[in-house]
Amino acid sequence: MSKLLDTINSPSDLKKLSLDELRELAVQIREELVNRVTLNGGHLASSLGVVELTIALHRVFESPKDKIIWDVGHQSYAHKLLTGRREQFATLRQHGGLSGFTCRDESPHDPFGAGHASTSISAGLGMAVARDLAKEDYSVISVIGDGAISGGMSFEAINNAGHLHTKFIVILNDNGMAISPSTGALSKFLNNVRFDPRFEFAKRNAKQTITNMPFGKAVWAFTKSIKRKFEKSMLPGSLWEELGFIYLGPVDGHNIRELEAALKRAKDFESKPVLIHMITKKGKGYDDAEADAVKYHGISPKSGGLKSSHGLSYSQVFGQTLHKIMSQNPQVVAITAAMTDGCGLGEIAAAFPDRVFDVGICEQHAVTFAAGMATQGYIPVVVIYSTFLQRGFDQIIHDVCLQKLPVVFAIDRGGIVGDDGKTHQGIFDLSFMSLIPDMVVSAPSDENDLQHLLYTAVNSGKPFALRYPRGFGEGVEIESSLHNIPIGQNEILVNGSDVAILATGKSVAFAREALEILTESGIKPTLVNNRYISPLDSELVLKIAQSHKYLVTVEENVISGGLGSRINTLLAEAGLVNKIKIANIGIPDKFVEHGNQSLLRAKYGLDGKGIAQRVLSLVGNPNEMKHPQIICP
Amino acid sequence: MSKLLDTINSPSDLKKLSLDELRELAVQIREELVNRVTLNGGHLASSLGVVELTIALHRVFESPKDKIIWDVGHQSYAHKLLTGRREQFATLRQHGGLSGFTCRDESPHDPFGAGHASTSISAGLGMAVARDLAKEDYSVISVIGDGAISGGMSFEAINNAGHLHTKFIVILNDNGMAISPSTGALSKFLNNVRFDPRFEFAKRNAKQTITNMPFGKAVWAFTKSIKRKFEKSMLPGSLWEELGFIYLGPVDGHNIRELEAALKRAKDFESKPVLIHMITKKGKGYDDAEADAVKYHGISPKSGGLKSSHGLSYSQVFGQTLHKIMSQNPQVVAITAAMTDGCGLGEIAAAFPDRVFDVGICEQHAVTFAAGMATQGYIPVVVIYSTFLQRGFDQIIHDVCLQKLPVVFAIDRGGIVGDDGKTHQGIFDLSFMSLIPDMVVSAPSDENDLQHLLYTAVNSGKPFALRYPRGFGEGVEIESSLHNIPIGQNEILVNGSDVAILATGKSVAFAREALEILTESGIKPTLVNNRYISPLDSELVLKIAQSHKYLVTVEENVISGGLGSRINTLLAEAGLVNKIKIANIGIPDKFVEHGNQSLLRAKYGLDGKGIAQRVLSLVGNPNEMKHPQIICP
Repeated sequence: MSKLLDTINSPSDLKKLSLDELRELAVQIREELVNRVTLNGGHLASSLGVVELTIALHRVFESPKDKIIWDVGHQSYAHKLLTGRREQFATLRQHGGLSGFTCRDESPHDPFGAGHASTSISAGLGMAVARDLAKEDYSVISVIGDGAISGGMSFEAINNAGHLHTKFIVILNDNGMAISPSTGALSKFLNNVRFDPRFEFAKRNAKQTITNMPFGKAVWAFTKSIKRKFEKSMLPGSLWEELGFIYLGPVDGHNIRELEAALKRAKDFESKPVLIHMITKKGKGYDDAEADAVKYHGISPKSGGLKSSHGLSYSQVFGQTLHKIMSQNPQVVAITAAMTDGCGLGEIAAAFPDRVFDVGICEQHAVTFAAGMATQGYIPVVVIYSTFLQRGFDQIIHDVCLQKLPVVFAIDRGGIVGDDGKTHQGIFDLSFMSLIPDMVVSAPSDENDLQHLLYTAVNSGKPFALRYPRGFGEGVEIESSLHNIPIGQNEILVNGSDVAILATGKSVAFAREALEILTESGIKPTLVNNRYISPLDSELVLKIAQSHKYLVTVEENVISGGLGSRINTLLAEAGLVNKIKIANIGIPDKFVEHGNQSLLRAKYGLDGKGIAQRVLSLVGNPNEMKHPQIICP
Repeated sequence: MSKLLDTINSPSDLKKLSLDELRELAVQIREELVNRVTLNGGHLASSLGVVELTIALHRVFESPKDKIIWDVGHQSYAHKLLTGRREQFATLRQHGGLSGFTCRDESPHDPFGAGHASTSISAGLGMAVARDLAKEDYSVISVIGDGAISGGMSFEAINNAGHLHTKFIVILNDNGMAISPSTGALSKFLNNVRFDPRFEFAKRNAKQTITNMPFGKAVWAFTKSIKRKFEKSMLPGSLWEELGFIYLGPVDGHNIRELEAALKRAKDFESKPVLIHMITKKGKGYDDAEADAVKYHGISPKSGGLKSSHGLSYSQVFGQTLHKIMSQNPQVVAITAAMTDGCGLGEIAAAFPDRVFDVGICEQHAVTFAAGMATQGYIPVVVIYSTFLQRGFDQIIHDVCLQKLPVVFAIDRGGIVGDDGKTHQGIFDLSFMSLIPDMVVSAPSDENDLQHLLYTAVNSGKPFALRYPRGFGEGVEIESSLHNIPIGQNEILVNGSDVAILATGKSVAFAREALEILTESGIKPTLVNNRYISPLDSELVLKIAQSHKYLVTVEENVISGGLGSRINTLLAEAGLVNKIKIANIGIPDKFVEHGNQSLLRAKYGLDGKGIAQRVLSLVGNPNEMKHPQIICP
């Protein structure tokens, strides 16, 4: 039996289908999503939740003339299937294949790329205003979840939209759950709407209820001057209407007919933004995902770069260590921005419910909230993915470092993250954290180093960042007691001669692999665990520079402002650049595409083989020894 | 006659005063503020607006046990006068004197420092939660203006506060005006509250109106189940109450008795945040400032570092140039985050009302809104102060550069800004912009360079940053026609020998002064206008490095990741570091205190004399020539 889905080559093909066929199509899309994502990995639950919406959007609107913007973009898989990318869908999140998010380079049906949350309303409003200026006529629709809408820039955009009187549609996809269940007052308010039957009653019957009363019609007439306000009070939309939006809903997000009706109505409003409040079930149509939407938010591929034989992931070791520290020190608290499970905090949240704060997708607030707690003697550990921390950059400078407050930044997903691609690679953090005065910046070489660095950070009394990678640890023994590692103290792991490799974080493990290859070539390098990037261990670096001919730095970070450039400067200050030949291995000045971690590390020369090759090419030409120089990629 | 103000040495002295004395005190505080700020410069209008609030706060609460957090901190002058800093008040914004903002180092009465907007609710909530954890008992009060509350992180914090059920007071100081008049739906909503007499009527008479009607009591009883919602609809607080706050107000912010009553009521709520909506007049009590609160928001000192003989400020030249460009090119639009006048956009906003967008204090939204417009063929010029742009860091990476969208970032107040101090010095921008792939980073050497660079940026089709300083231009001729300056093309201004000075931005002018001093010492340096920081003019730098013995870089930016470190790396790549001796002049790895621009430039060796001294010390010892090296401060 031929599949309906196979006949959809562009959104226009959807318009010929009957309602029954559309329902069948939804089933086929879900099958395709489940099959593909369980193989390739990706964001399953959110994509399952918007299948009907995607169908309805592409029937009511004309993409790409009309602009459909998916916030975060992780729920756009069905959109990809229906906009000419069905045949490439098998390449989802594979190197060279379809991105796991929306991407302007990928299709004209993706008018705005994403990956981070809360950008869609700003981008959509920009497009709507551009359309008005150009006197063109198309619709702009931003689809945003109830988690992402809690990010502050969503509010900035809503506030601006309510003021600009432009034709613009925001669809609030309310599934009662961000990556972790949503927190926050807005979420509670939305839940009231979802679950309080009085709202439906009130909405339908406000007028009728009163006019049916004795003298009710007179009452209704008498209260005419306040009637509008009265009606509004009965509706879940009053918040939005006060902010200048027309509110439609709540709409059943799994009912194609109801969705189409709402979208058609929204399309007709000319000079005011419209909010469609849509209720969906995350993971809809896949029992496992419905039951545990947090687990099925993002899932790992069946085969991939992660070796489970190593046992615990860095995030898990982090969580266990923090658990131990919080058990011993009541002043330590943990703060996450909607990433309780992703960051390994699930157990702590259960064990210390009053000392773990999930503030929602709000990195800015997370950082300054932590600074506030630190002023009162607490030691907050702020746990955020590397790229998302970029959103708290000003707060780290202005609220933490400028006031020298002891906030610990546990930066998860530092370096190459793999399949999530350009928006998620944590390749800027060593640079943007190191340029801030008074910030300690560190990266553990393995999971045992991680636990001691976390212990050190918590006890340091300083703004202190530790950055660790996505994925499993190195499988080393995790010592049972925690100890302090003096700030700025790096460590010689292997004593060799001629060549010294100074690696940081995950790159230490790959440098060890390089050492094996190099030993076979008769080269026996020194290996340093350069766990402190700022401040550097100047004494050690200078000692090594004086006792070696070649120095190689390795980091999963852009060269600009990272470990390599800091070491170059240190050597330059000491007047040693003309005594030693240097190579900096790191990420070149570009955004790194998606692909699994192993593949990307190999491509960028960051794995054992790549490091070894670079060392060999550095020492390969004895003539160059006469003119020592720094070589940067 | 002895002044009442002179008897107030701590907040406790306020508690003895009668209402008449308090009113007299308010008059004396305003006199002191006007006299001092017109001499020293500073934020006048906002401080005048909260005199009564400051008095009432310190009578009802016990600072420093109770924590009073002033958002931005620019309205804290009366607070400083009443908290033991009266005698130092003459040193306001002077080097070594009182800061123009709140500052933890300055007084225990400043529990949280500020300078940037929208942080107070996050910080206050952190303190309140810390207090609960420690089972202590004090009040936390965040005071925030209607401009700052539009910043997204305020919303993040409000949303989180509504969820946390903690004792916490937010005072919304609603003066209908941010730095520029507030924009946005929230502001319009607040204005409705301010000016709609029905709200007062409704608030007082909702129940009465209905129960006075025939059968009204029955109606009232009948509608009991929806009564609470009904009442809420009548009140301006429904928005806040839906977000989990208790709403009190609106309160007359210039009526001490009314304020104290509201504060006392708010103090008693134990497990829920309270929002006090306070209506004030910005500039209250000083006719000029009341009439033009924008002009009197921040005023310059009577005597200071700015030489008005130069005519136009950089901001003004920027505004004029953009005016010219927008007249010629209808695709160019301007976006500001509540800084229309500060950034020199006043005239353009009047001339092109539909192409200038003031989005409110919302740097994140400003950047992504611009990205949205850029996708539709417009060329947005985003005009933001250097330190405030830190708040859009993630959006610049994720929404602009990653998608290679042609957004121009006009970064005003780059480098040393002077009296506003640590939170406002624009000393990180060259680093945090240069580390982003695909971003052009430039800094004009004078106002003529500025106009051509802006023209180049607008026509480049790339993400393009130009960074210029606070203050007057160099007084050079401004050419009448605009031309393109090829990206990466820097310029030799003076051909000399032995020493080459590569300066960027404002530092070029000071390097010229250094040249005069050096010529007297018999040294005749080459001077380069290093206007492009990324990409560098590699060809020119290498040529100069090969034809000179000494190379000095000068920038008003931290060395880490700035011009100096980029030039060091370029020379290192080329293997030239052992042929030339290098010194990098810039900001050391620390936050720069307040003080006037001239004083700070002298202190940090960034003025003509400082640069000359550094050059002299570099070339002073011929022995060092044998061991060339890079010297970084």
